[in-house]
Amino acid sequence: MDKVVEKVVAGDVRSVARLIRDIDDGIPEVRESLKGLYPYTGNAYVIGITGAPGVGKSTLVDQMLSHIRKKDKTVGVLAVDPTSPFSGGAILGDRVRMQRHSMDSGVFIRSLATRGHFGGLTQSTRSAIDVLDAMGKDYIIVETVGVGQDEVDVVKTAHTTVIVVIPGMGDDIQAIKAGILETGDIFLINKADREGTDKTMSDLRLMIEMDQRKYEGGKWKPPILKTESIIDRGVVEFLEEVEKHKKYLTETTEGLELRKSKGKVREELGEMVKNRLIQEVLSKLTETGEFDGAVQAIVEGKTDPYSACDALVLPRLGLHTG
Amino acid sequence: MDKVVEKVVAGDVRSVARLIRDIDDGIPEVRESLKGLYPYTGNAYVIGITGAPGVGKSTLVDQMLSHIRKKDKTVGVLAVDPTSPFSGGAILGDRVRMQRHSMDSGVFIRSLATRGHFGGLTQSTRSAIDVLDAMGKDYIIVETVGVGQDEVDVVKTAHTTVIVVIPGMGDDIQAIKAGILETGDIFLINKADREGTDKTMSDLRLMIEMDQRKYEGGKWKPPILKTESIIDRGVVEFLEEVEKHKKYLTETTEGLELRKSKGKVREELGEMVKNRLIQEVLSKLTETGEFDGAVQAIVEGKTDPYSACDALVLPRLGLHTG
Repeated sequence: MDKVVEKVVAGDVRSVARLIRDIDDGIPEVRESLKGLYPYTGNAYVIGITGAPGVGKSTLVDQMLSHIRKKDKTVGVLAVDPTSPFSGGAILGDRVRMQRHSMDSGVFIRSLATRGHFGGLTQSTRSAIDVLDAMGKDYIIVETVGVGQDEVDVVKTAHTTVIVVIPGMGDDIQAIKAGILETGDIFLINKADREGTDKTMSDLRLMIEMDQRKYEGGKWKPPILKTESIIDRGVVEFLEEVEKHKKYLTETTEGLELRKSKGKVREELGEMVKNRLIQEVLSKLTETGEFDGAVQAIVEGKTDPYSACDALVLPRLGLHTG
Repeated sequence: MDKVVEKVVAGDVRSVARLIRDIDDGIPEVRESLKGLYPYTGNAYVIGITGAPGVGKSTLVDQMLSHIRKKDKTVGVLAVDPTSPFSGGAILGDRVRMQRHSMDSGVFIRSLATRGHFGGLTQSTRSAIDVLDAMGKDYIIVETVGVGQDEVDVVKTAHTTVIVVIPGMGDDIQAIKAGILETGDIFLINKADREGTDKTMSDLRLMIEMDQRKYEGGKWKPPILKTESIIDRGVVEFLEEVEKHKKYLTETTEGLELRKSKGKVREELGEMVKNRLIQEVLSKLTETGEFDGAVQAIVEGKTDPYSACDALVLPRLGLHTG
């Protein structure tokens, strides 16, 4: 057995940290370790926490850690950080709040920031989840800001997806978060002591009812809960809902289909194949200078991008051009 | 010369409509027409209009059409529609407002809705822009909702990107639209008769100043304008800013670099190569049943996704596995 695999499965924190960093950096060699780790995965329960900066995700996660640890379960946290100049700082600051768990060997917290790498955030997150899963963590919490298609995809890696909002987001919830709302299994209105909580509650309820494609008979109907995570209010009740959703996924046929279905494997393998193709071919075309040559030819008007693309791609696949 | 190319260049509306529909449907044969049309492109000026549903984009575009037509310039409009169940209906309704221009042969309006196709929204939009450009339109307006990475990419196809907001979006502007704010060349506060306009103005100003990476000395400093497009207030002034930005792009060295630079060609060709790879390989793996076989093997625990991916991709590229 691969030495890294051996150490990760044994729970060696330093090996886990290094492997996740290598995943984040897009180092190709991690694939061999991931192959070896795969048979040890499938036991962790993945909870996705998503919401705009400022809704209190980190405080919530911090409280979740305390409650989960009280039950003697272990937890891994992956904080998926956006690289935007507007929110990077705030998120980094929030991270500090989880520090009180940093000496607890039952908790492992890491950030991922791979946006822009070939393969992207979603693949890195899935691989990092596999590592924490193989390491033996009972729960894995994936925290994201939930902006953009990338992060909608990241959220889909979770078993239970939790959407966190705060009162007073008003009409904008509907307008802006459409793509991500559909992925929500549980909705939390955090900072629920603030004005506007009832309005936000009724807005969310309306939207959930509108999305009938998802919430047909027999399917999970996403609850909307109020929390004030800073004083730990509502967090236990929230975790009970997570357990209910877990039970739903484990015990019902609709749930089973969602959880480890052929459809899910198909989707994940499809993305992996795409990313791999891009990585192998585009990096080679760059190395050989073919890509730069094509760019130059287009700039000089000697060819068009459509023909240049044919000429770059088709021979690599053993296909003729034109 | 290809008959379609000939007809599009001659401005034949029916051929243009059919070609854009075929692009939207992802029909591979359009590539040959696009190759033929490319030498006729590069003359149109592309304006991107983006903002959440309800900010009044369609009314604004409608007023823009009137003013541009008064100057005897021709315009194409591409309305990039999201497929989300929450906003689809509203957008369709808005489109009706542009109908008053539908009998004007100097105006050509089409919707694109290709989300989910291989190649995606960005590629379809670029190709549709090429078609309208080759058709001889002086201006092309691309209207998007600006949600998600896909649409941030769509916005980047424009020469001048206009971000439309309304008063009272408050703190959420910063939280949610980070990715797209960085792409803005002009900011419009529409419905500026409403309460909160000054607050929104100062929020936007702060954010623009924060994004120092973009707005260093000598570079274009995005203006923030107030409009009430429903009564045509501020629209002429807005179009003057568009002309100023156009002049900036055409006449300054920084601008030239942005407009038809090697970097832009490189980016576009890179994406085209990626999309083409995915299309050629993934569709073939699906046809032959290899992809389904791999999914089945993973589900049965006979292999892991990382090894399955190697086995699917590497032979296609003439590389050995393992």
